[in-house]
Amino acid sequence: MKFWSQFFIPTLKESPADAEIASHKLLVRAGLVRKLSGGLYTYLPLGLIVMRKLTQLCREEIDRAGGIELAMPHLHPAENWRDGPRWAAAREIMFRADSAGEGQRAGREPEFVLGPTHEEIITPLVKTEITSYRDLPKNFYQIGTKFRNEIRPRYGLMRAREFVMMDAYSFDVNDERAVASYFAMKGAYEAFFRRVGVQAIAVEADTGVMGGSFSHEFMVPAEIGDDDVIYNEASGYAANREKAASALVPADWADAAPAGAVEEFATPGVVTIAALEAAPYAVPADRQFKTLVYIGDGKPFVVILRGSDELETAKLGSLGFTVTRPATPEEIEPVLGAKPGSLGAVKGTFKNEAALAGIFADHAIRLIGNGTTGANRDGFHLRNVNVTRDLAVTRFGDFRRVRAGEPDVKSGQPLQVRRGIEVGHIFKLGTKYSEKFGAVFTDDQKQSHPMVMGCYGIGISRTLQAVIEQSHDADGIVWPWNAAPFHVHICLLDPQDAAAAEMARQLGAAAERGGADVLIDDRVERPGVKFKDADLLGLPLRITIGGRGLKEGIIEVKWRTAKEAVKVPLTEAEAHITAAVTEAASNAGR
Amino acid sequence: MKFWSQFFIPTLKESPADAEIASHKLLVRAGLVRKLSGGLYTYLPLGLIVMRKLTQLCREEIDRAGGIELAMPHLHPAENWRDGPRWAAAREIMFRADSAGEGQRAGREPEFVLGPTHEEIITPLVKTEITSYRDLPKNFYQIGTKFRNEIRPRYGLMRAREFVMMDAYSFDVNDERAVASYFAMKGAYEAFFRRVGVQAIAVEADTGVMGGSFSHEFMVPAEIGDDDVIYNEASGYAANREKAASALVPADWADAAPAGAVEEFATPGVVTIAALEAAPYAVPADRQFKTLVYIGDGKPFVVILRGSDELETAKLGSLGFTVTRPATPEEIEPVLGAKPGSLGAVKGTFKNEAALAGIFADHAIRLIGNGTTGANRDGFHLRNVNVTRDLAVTRFGDFRRVRAGEPDVKSGQPLQVRRGIEVGHIFKLGTKYSEKFGAVFTDDQKQSHPMVMGCYGIGISRTLQAVIEQSHDADGIVWPWNAAPFHVHICLLDPQDAAAAEMARQLGAAAERGGADVLIDDRVERPGVKFKDADLLGLPLRITIGGRGLKEGIIEVKWRTAKEAVKVPLTEAEAHITAAVTEAASNAGR
Repeated sequence: MKFWSQFFIPTLKESPADAEIASHKLLVRAGLVRKLSGGLYTYLPLGLIVMRKLTQLCREEIDRAGGIELAMPHLHPAENWRDGPRWAAAREIMFRADSAGEGQRAGREPEFVLGPTHEEIITPLVKTEITSYRDLPKNFYQIGTKFRNEIRPRYGLMRAREFVMMDAYSFDVNDERAVASYFAMKGAYEAFFRRVGVQAIAVEADTGVMGGSFSHEFMVPAEIGDDDVIYNEASGYAANREKAASALVPADWADAAPAGAVEEFATPGVVTIAALEAAPYAVPADRQFKTLVYIGDGKPFVVILRGSDELETAKLGSLGFTVTRPATPEEIEPVLGAKPGSLGAVKGTFKNEAALAGIFADHAIRLIGNGTTGANRDGFHLRNVNVTRDLAVTRFGDFRRVRAGEPDVKSGQPLQVRRGIEVGHIFKLGTKYSEKFGAVFTDDQKQSHPMVMGCYGIGISRTLQAVIEQSHDADGIVWPWNAAPFHVHICLLDPQDAAAAEMARQLGAAAERGGADVLIDDRVERPGVKFKDADLLGLPLRITIGGRGLKEGIIEVKWRTAKEAVKVPLTEAEAHITAAVTEAASNAGR
Repeated sequence: MKFWSQFFIPTLKESPADAEIASHKLLVRAGLVRKLSGGLYTYLPLGLIVMRKLTQLCREEIDRAGGIELAMPHLHPAENWRDGPRWAAAREIMFRADSAGEGQRAGREPEFVLGPTHEEIITPLVKTEITSYRDLPKNFYQIGTKFRNEIRPRYGLMRAREFVMMDAYSFDVNDERAVASYFAMKGAYEAFFRRVGVQAIAVEADTGVMGGSFSHEFMVPAEIGDDDVIYNEASGYAANREKAASALVPADWADAAPAGAVEEFATPGVVTIAALEAAPYAVPADRQFKTLVYIGDGKPFVVILRGSDELETAKLGSLGFTVTRPATPEEIEPVLGAKPGSLGAVKGTFKNEAALAGIFADHAIRLIGNGTTGANRDGFHLRNVNVTRDLAVTRFGDFRRVRAGEPDVKSGQPLQVRRGIEVGHIFKLGTKYSEKFGAVFTDDQKQSHPMVMGCYGIGISRTLQAVIEQSHDADGIVWPWNAAPFHVHICLLDPQDAAAAEMARQLGAAAERGGADVLIDDRVERPGVKFKDADLLGLPLRITIGGRGLKEGIIEVKWRTAKEAVKVPLTEAEAHITAAVTEAASNAGR
């Protein structure tokens, strides 16, 4: 039982100027956090209580899935990262740590970095400590602060420089066991989000800089989300934007009949898809071939898309280059023979085709018959271009961004798109890290193999905010039971009235017997202020003691989700409250 | 109930090469921690469990003392520190954090630092959130990771770069209330250390770089401690080396009768106390005046001690200079007129006395009658020097290091010295930070005052190691009940024997009913290995199931602190164990 006057819940009438979304506003207004600096927040007592509850729920579920908790340092020797597989890409989003003293030498390489995740630490540890198949599988996890040098922190705890994350790392003897570990964790995630009271859906995801073979993201649908989820409710398909595919090209697809030979025509000043759509050319975008040039591991390569499609950059990851970026006009001209705007991939039009690392075509260009593309000659295009006959394609693949309404691969029904917040991620990593760090084990035949790894993350601080984003109204937060900082909010209207104060204590104790955490608002404030704050804080059950009701021998009991309060006679109050919280707790689920 | 085979307790036969002390060796050998890098340790599952238990005990006691828990970021804007009172001194022991990206600009001032303590963060927060006397007192605390750029990390968790600390900050309306907050916290500390099972004594301490008016350290006596505790058991006096004083100079002290006028004599090549003690001069060290020159805030000043005494540098803090360091010979010569070895403070011998910020004499020089000192002329000394008649003293003070055997100020009885490990610290800070950051409140007369602060720290990770340092034997750790990772260690000698395994589970459940945490060693290992590991882990109660005993219908129960095991018939085993752990838990205290 906490008494507001002895506690610290600084509620605010106004939202902070930098808060763009409801959950960020409510986090600050309800006194859960305060901003120290961009992306850095102090958890005030109420926010910290919620964080501890979420941490405990997460720990219970990961333990149930066989997780073993430990705690690795926040400071990592930069050496570990340099020895690992992702230093070049990861360092750009990391903090380094060095002496703050005035004698600090400038310009040298970092001695320490602050951990965003811990593959580079756990893998060498496991290499040293575990050598036999008898000691596998193991799944190590920790729940603690991680660091990310966000250039543009925003949305409160959503995109922060410090955040609290559960990160886990599984080690198995083979791929099959690793998949079992993966799905055990997927189950733990689902249980965690269900118990927290947040609707999170598992979507197929790109593995990105983590590498690895497959991956799911857990997304909380929310209008303000940073990520798009592509899904079809009926078929159960769900993937994020980077990964999503559709069945745009029919299985029985066949080339269009060529209308004639390829013809060059002058297109002075035409360097965009839109310009070629306009008169006098009037070529629809979905009949144009869009030719893009990228650099992969230092060599140029070509990607061909429909003019009406957008490249999904993440999908270039499937090509196997470690680092990719768009090529500059200076890099393009010696290879294709023209500047952007007149590029194409028709056989025989390249200036130096041998310099290319490949020509990769999106499946959807197969839908183009007798299309138009650049001639690799500035100011000229080619018409009557057909895919099989005319284009120099190394390999087809999925490179385009899916759009709402396209047919689902599973069901053929239209895909839908909604925005979401990523709150968790699971990766089947394979042996990328174990090979790099030599984390091998000996099998029962004394043969040595690299361990097969998975890695897992749940954003605990992000989940806190996702709960609020998903569960609030115009007056404030509406806490699900298991995530609520307290369950029962007792508004003691006249704290100077000793009998009423004693009653608050007794009813609080009755609620505690039912398993509830209780906050008593014993401030000397007007009832209106107390009710407004109670709605803002959004604890599940409000009990009002005082005023006319008390004189008439009743208290008021109001669920945060209900419109109206229920009047309960004093004689029945204790029993009523114990029963109400017991039922609510049991509905919330273990 | 945890099963060893499903858990992760990598015990070692050998101590790590860098471990100099027993607790460090045992931390690693018993599988509680692993070193990542100098001063950076991973808490393995067993170590993390102990950390969580200590954290919870600490939280309970600080809550009881009125503490309100929150959590501040680890990354601090360097700006907060630049605005605070200790940046110049503190930055030398801090880490800075900046982008790890390759584009990182060299040589600029840090953007962020990693918090060693959080005065610079909490004070501005309180300034914004608390404005009225009605909202005071408040005592905010957090338990989490702190960072310190130790140049020479050693002793495992004792002197680490990352460590877990409880840090608290109290804010009061006046000095009297601040003292009450201070002593409430002192009581909480005492309760915490008592419950953990570690003997820690509160000693008067220097306030050092924290500033503030008074301070206690909590020290765990241990031979390997970094700090000296000066104490007298009978009087209860205890202070650390930096702060300790003795009653060396009698209250009725009077000048010795001068033996004659001051005389200069040649001392070619004599530049040490020892050389002047030797023939032909034969001046005992305690009859020599030792003259030291320091620089305080850029100006030189003189400190005079007995030749037989050592300067306690921390005591120069009482002089009010912010930064002090020894003067160089080049800085000394123009002011005193000689090089070190021939310095003195006899009136009229200075070359430029006006350049001095002061001449400060230790009380103990009053015991010197007709002493000898440098002549401020290279190669010459003066004899027949008497304090009152001859020395130019701005002010007397306590600047010397106390030695064992000197009389206690309280009782006059001899002081003793022992080494100790600092595990906690409390400071009455006063208004140093609140004035600097403008943390003021309005009283009931609408008058504004700076809040009066205290700050408090308990090294949780250091306490973990102090427990082991204080409580171990040749075979391993001997855990006090409340700090033990588990309470009951069940050695299941033959885990393949299904009946024995079921019995282990049942006895484990019986122990849990008595409030104990249970570890079952179900590894396929020889009994000798299991017993050695049980002693190494040091859980309070060991239960052995198997072997001849089991055939004869008995189990063995052995306290870690006992020499012999007790044989208990199977029929009485459950009742015996429940009773034993219930009693042990109740003895350990809440």
